[in-house]
Amino acid sequence: MSMIYLDHAAATPMSRKALLAMEPYFSEQFFNPSSPYLPAKHVRDNYEYAKKTIAHSIGAKSADLVITAGATESINLAFTSVKAAELEPDILPEILILSTEHSAVVSAAASVARETGAVVKEIAVDRTGLIDLVDFRNKLSDKTVLVSVSLANNELGTIEPLSEIARIIAEERNNRLKSGNITPIYLHSDASQALNLMDISVARLGVDMLTINAAKIGGPKAVGALYFAHEVKLQPIIAGGGQELGLRSGTENVPGVMGFAAAVEELKTHLSGNRKKYQALVTILKNELSKCQVEPIFLGNKKHQLANFCPVCFPGIDAERLVFLLEDQEVYVSTGAACAANKGTASRVLTAIGLNDQEIAGSLRISLGVLNDEQNVRLSGQIIRETVEKEAKRVKNEY
Amino acid sequence: MSMIYLDHAAATPMSRKALLAMEPYFSEQFFNPSSPYLPAKHVRDNYEYAKKTIAHSIGAKSADLVITAGATESINLAFTSVKAAELEPDILPEILILSTEHSAVVSAAASVARETGAVVKEIAVDRTGLIDLVDFRNKLSDKTVLVSVSLANNELGTIEPLSEIARIIAEERNNRLKSGNITPIYLHSDASQALNLMDISVARLGVDMLTINAAKIGGPKAVGALYFAHEVKLQPIIAGGGQELGLRSGTENVPGVMGFAAAVEELKTHLSGNRKKYQALVTILKNELSKCQVEPIFLGNKKHQLANFCPVCFPGIDAERLVFLLEDQEVYVSTGAACAANKGTASRVLTAIGLNDQEIAGSLRISLGVLNDEQNVRLSGQIIRETVEKEAKRVKNEY
Repeated sequence: MSMIYLDHAAATPMSRKALLAMEPYFSEQFFNPSSPYLPAKHVRDNYEYAKKTIAHSIGAKSADLVITAGATESINLAFTSVKAAELEPDILPEILILSTEHSAVVSAAASVARETGAVVKEIAVDRTGLIDLVDFRNKLSDKTVLVSVSLANNELGTIEPLSEIARIIAEERNNRLKSGNITPIYLHSDASQALNLMDISVARLGVDMLTINAAKIGGPKAVGALYFAHEVKLQPIIAGGGQELGLRSGTENVPGVMGFAAAVEELKTHLSGNRKKYQALVTILKNELSKCQVEPIFLGNKKHQLANFCPVCFPGIDAERLVFLLEDQEVYVSTGAACAANKGTASRVLTAIGLNDQEIAGSLRISLGVLNDEQNVRLSGQIIRETVEKEAKRVKNEY
Repeated sequence: MSMIYLDHAAATPMSRKALLAMEPYFSEQFFNPSSPYLPAKHVRDNYEYAKKTIAHSIGAKSADLVITAGATESINLAFTSVKAAELEPDILPEILILSTEHSAVVSAAASVARETGAVVKEIAVDRTGLIDLVDFRNKLSDKTVLVSVSLANNELGTIEPLSEIARIIAEERNNRLKSGNITPIYLHSDASQALNLMDISVARLGVDMLTINAAKIGGPKAVGALYFAHEVKLQPIIAGGGQELGLRSGTENVPGVMGFAAAVEELKTHLSGNRKKYQALVTILKNELSKCQVEPIFLGNKKHQLANFCPVCFPGIDAERLVFLLEDQEVYVSTGAACAANKGTASRVLTAIGLNDQEIAGSLRISLGVLNDEQNVRLSGQIIRETVEKEAKRVKNEY
């Protein structure tokens, strides 16, 4: 039996097309795009064209995009808007983030707060991970400078109503204009997971900043970008040669950007097909898991969820143990986001949606992707079901 | 005729071995190294082993190394030591950089100065680019927190006497210890160019921090590292999941680090051979250029220069024009560092070594590398000579 990988939200293999697009830029087209001779200018042109492709895929212009070494850097750059903002005198700026945000957002917010004295507040979510708009309105104040809400949550796949949030922020902006309050207010969204399955337009969403990530869509690791609207002032976190509009210095990662652009293009062609495919696969998986004697609770929002997400909770089962038992059968799932900050601590996301300790302990993150098909998804459902049932029996016998 | 590339200091093609080392990690070994299942742990092990290889190559331990997305980020991270340092009360920290440093160092220093109020002073160099140790001693004060001197200059290839600088800093450290001054003092060095041709040991150099760069040694672009000694306190510039000892968050660039390690290993095997090879090639080139009717001035320090560097000045000739005339003949050279900050401005480096405007305008940066051999170096020397002579005649006729 070959492995069944069900953790595409953590990492996904590169698409062949993306890799092919990168290859020439490792070798023959190795030139520094800032060099003055023709072959280097050629590389510059191709780099700029690739950037344009990436920008267009989210309805933006190339001049509104800063290429970064991944989503985390993009998020940190977005949060410099709090440092760079011109404020009303003597106010402490406020930052609102969703309580289910990725640790990159949480840490970037904390870091800017330390440096500026800004106050970070978390907006509550309901049990499906959807933003509580009443809580949002309550916490929004005339000192709020930045609101950061991921387009789709990285553990639940819950899709947030960004344009509704943007509308509320536009109202607040209007009020400030009327009252002469010069403090700006920006909406940032981490779309790392969403880009994979949503047709994103920054204008339609109404965001001022958007983070995207190549690695989650079949592009290379350590490549991302930040879209930012003209009115947003940012501060470079990496100073130097002045590349990327002076906002991100360092020799451009040419192969990385070529791979990112190729992945984006491939994605766009297959977007609606992929959505249908994953919806069908998730249905198959849910059907299999639903036959389990330990009744599964499917997490996230049924209506507003990325098509490839199937987070699930088996109350009373130890999911960390499950990960290892499944690993023995070459079925790979996780219990939460894959990053160093999450080792040995309960998922912030699952706590935020109000699961109790037992439910959190019994939760798996399952996210489908290119390595899945009907056959291996069905099989994985059976294996997970049997493993959960065996575990339930073992636990029962133990007590 | 095929191209003759003489600008390896700006960019260099990836070595085949480095690329081969990366490839599995784009596809089969795509896993997130922070994921909990076996194949991901495997990737983690390989990543850590690669980091160890990179660390060992400069005589350091893996735990003393932070992987970054290139040298510029590494330099910016090094400069956070000024922010993180515990100082004597009410002092404004001072930063000393060499007047010939790369724009990444200049900008990182300026950026930290803006944030902390630190004062940045530039240490003078002689006409060969060597540090003026008297000026250094004069500018060194009991408030100096960071001294940043590149191991080898990126335009001249001049190798600085790091261990001598370290000795002076050790004296100062000793004096502070005696007088009860708690302000720390660190020595940082940008070894981006040097790693290619020098056998580096952080202990022998006596540095507290060292920046290295994969792209300059046949590794991938946008991968670098910062070595830092235990006593150095740093502040993350990219906060998030807590990767890289909490100092550089974001999913690890696994393929990039595998490529970096492979490039480092390859380098070490060929170090002394490469040095001899480039010395011989530079001698051939200098001999050819010396026959020129416009007498060339070879820049940099004859004794202390990276073996592959051959910066040269043809007084009275417009080097920018030369770049284009040579481009027509597929000979690629540059006039200075390749980065966005250098567009249309005179080289800081050449100004710092005291060249006059005419000399600066007539200077080419030539740096040899893997794409050069005896034949194409000799040919390029002839082409450059003939082109310079033609230009000299044209200029003469014009006036």
